Amino acid sequence: MGGDKAPEEILWGAVKAKDLGIQVIAVGPYPVIHEILRKKSPSETAHIEIYHAPEVVRMDESPMVVMKEKKESSISVVSRLVAEGRADASLSAGNSGAFMAAALHYLRMPGILRPCFGAILPSLKGKVILVDAGANMDCHPRHLLDFAIMGEAYMKAVEGKEKPRIGLVNVGVEPGKGNALMKKAYSLLKNSNLNFIGNVEGRQLFVGDVDVLVCDGFTGNVVLKATEGVGVVLSRIIYRELPKSKWAQLPLLLLYPTIQRIKATLDYHGYGGAPLLGIEGVCIVAHGSSTARSIYATLRQAKEMVENRVYELIREKIQEGRRKGIGIFSRDYRSGGLHPAESAD
Amino acid sequence: MGGDKAPEEILWGAVKAKDLGIQVIAVGPYPVIHEILRKKSPSETAHIEIYHAPEVVRMDESPMVVMKEKKESSISVVSRLVAEGRADASLSAGNSGAFMAAALHYLRMPGILRPCFGAILPSLKGKVILVDAGANMDCHPRHLLDFAIMGEAYMKAVEGKEKPRIGLVNVGVEPGKGNALMKKAYSLLKNSNLNFIGNVEGRQLFVGDVDVLVCDGFTGNVVLKATEGVGVVLSRIIYRELPKSKWAQLPLLLLYPTIQRIKATLDYHGYGGAPLLGIEGVCIVAHGSSTARSIYATLRQAKEMVENRVYELIREKIQEGRRKGIGIFSRDYRSGGLHPAESAD
Repeated sequence: MGGDKAPEEILWGAVKAKDLGIQVIAVGPYPVIHEILRKKSPSETAHIEIYHAPEVVRMDESPMVVMKEKKESSISVVSRLVAEGRADASLSAGNSGAFMAAALHYLRMPGILRPCFGAILPSLKGKVILVDAGANMDCHPRHLLDFAIMGEAYMKAVEGKEKPRIGLVNVGVEPGKGNALMKKAYSLLKNSNLNFIGNVEGRQLFVGDVDVLVCDGFTGNVVLKATEGVGVVLSRIIYRELPKSKWAQLPLLLLYPTIQRIKATLDYHGYGGAPLLGIEGVCIVAHGSSTARSIYATLRQAKEMVENRVYELIREKIQEGRRKGIGIFSRDYRSGGLHPAESAD
Repeated sequence: MGGDKAPEEILWGAVKAKDLGIQVIAVGPYPVIHEILRKKSPSETAHIEIYHAPEVVRMDESPMVVMKEKKESSISVVSRLVAEGRADASLSAGNSGAFMAAALHYLRMPGILRPCFGAILPSLKGKVILVDAGANMDCHPRHLLDFAIMGEAYMKAVEGKEKPRIGLVNVGVEPGKGNALMKKAYSLLKNSNLNFIGNVEGRQLFVGDVDVLVCDGFTGNVVLKATEGVGVVLSRIIYRELPKSKWAQLPLLLLYPTIQRIKATLDYHGYGGAPLLGIEGVCIVAHGSSTARSIYATLRQAKEMVENRVYELIREKIQEGRRKGIGIFSRDYRSGGLHPAESAD
């Protein structure tokens, strides 16, 4: 029920996902969903099951209130279905704060203090992941180390990168650059067993020489939305300057295949959503303005995350870190809860 | 002597600036500058005076070392000339850290704890300023209030905005969004006498509904470079997809005027540089890859800042704030140095 174009576009995405060979559970008010799905033939919707969830969460509702008062909302129910083993993955294009709160409630992973959102971005050389894309506003340096490990696991398992290159989003490439958080995170990453290649400037984010871009959720979210904003403004400027008469537009027609190829490269609808990493299951937030195409892409991404066991890989990494005393840790890890690498700061 | 294309392009920009009716002092090693300028006729360079500064600062040198060991470098001398009243403004396309250190050394403004860089950005509705664009990595909420006041003064004085609209760069528009810094800065700005319109998401940065975009220097710098990066990657993708044969490129030729108009709108070389605000004088950092055109634009910007008395306006605002107990303050303002509006945090 979440997203600017819900529930229609969400459901059309689910219908389209028949060719992925997956079963889809559409969660929301039964009559609403049923009414939409019956527009399609029974064979087109045979892979879709409706799970009745009467309540709907608005975008402006506080996650905490939702968890207390709207336990039967679709956004809350999907995570419960994953926790109960009745679904392998959940996705929503709705209130991401509420979605995260529900996922944390039902699917907490022992040892992870701060799950994070990963944003899958296009680059000149394929997909890269930005962690954290907005789950954690105020971070400790060790959280950034967690994010790096989670992002690495995603790129390994889903994108098949053998040894993902980890970079720290910063104001300059030299060590010692940045704010206090980034300086400390730099030395934690440097001393980890990750393939840390150093600081990455904003200019290089989309070049594709780094697979995992690490930063706090505030910076990540602002950067993400600012770069989206550039795209929107650019297309408006281009549109404004285009010739208005039919004849003058003829050359555009001749360039049509080129323009389509450029659009396809840049179209985020084909990139899937932002997975919540560091929980016991697969939960993905789809873009708020998701179309059927983006929902389809996100369902495919969910399938890949389940098949490639991303969250199991993250869990293994934690246990490995615990044995070695590096990597991920948590409050309940050692009395006092401080990580050895941290004692320096 | 600073910048990727120095000294030639810097000097050609200065030559071009003849029509601005300004005198230019070219600071650097005399023989080098003389050799370049003599390629032009004497009448073209009559407005340029050479000031001999033997030392050159590299991009990777530490600002502190420069201030101690390279007092006769062009980057240091320009600020001294302003402090001594021998120049009205200074600009450099070189090491911005060293430039800032020299400006702070010679041109400190009483009452300002943290001068900041303002980045002048294009938007759908004219120029906007982003403060801080990278001078201060770790900020206190009250620094963001300072930045807002300085950015407001710039937009008033140089861009002629009557009542500049101030926005806080954040992850969402609702009050209460963001990290601890932004939440506190929000309430400081809300309680100030500025025209504060609330939080601004990354998506809206370039729309032009806000004149002054306020954030800490870390976030500002990362956002700035990330949006530049999008531009670079976009143009590479477009170039890659363009037809390669001469015939297929014909439609592009027909669109030439359109493409030129779009390029002109987006070309940052026409936008000038990043002024250092909150110092006793006009100091502007030009883009590292400045061409003659960008240096010309930055010289014009310097002229406008001098004529419109931007830094005097900022100084007045401080005094006003001191009288009213709001606005800008400093360590030497009241014993303890804390601003009343701050006591809440």
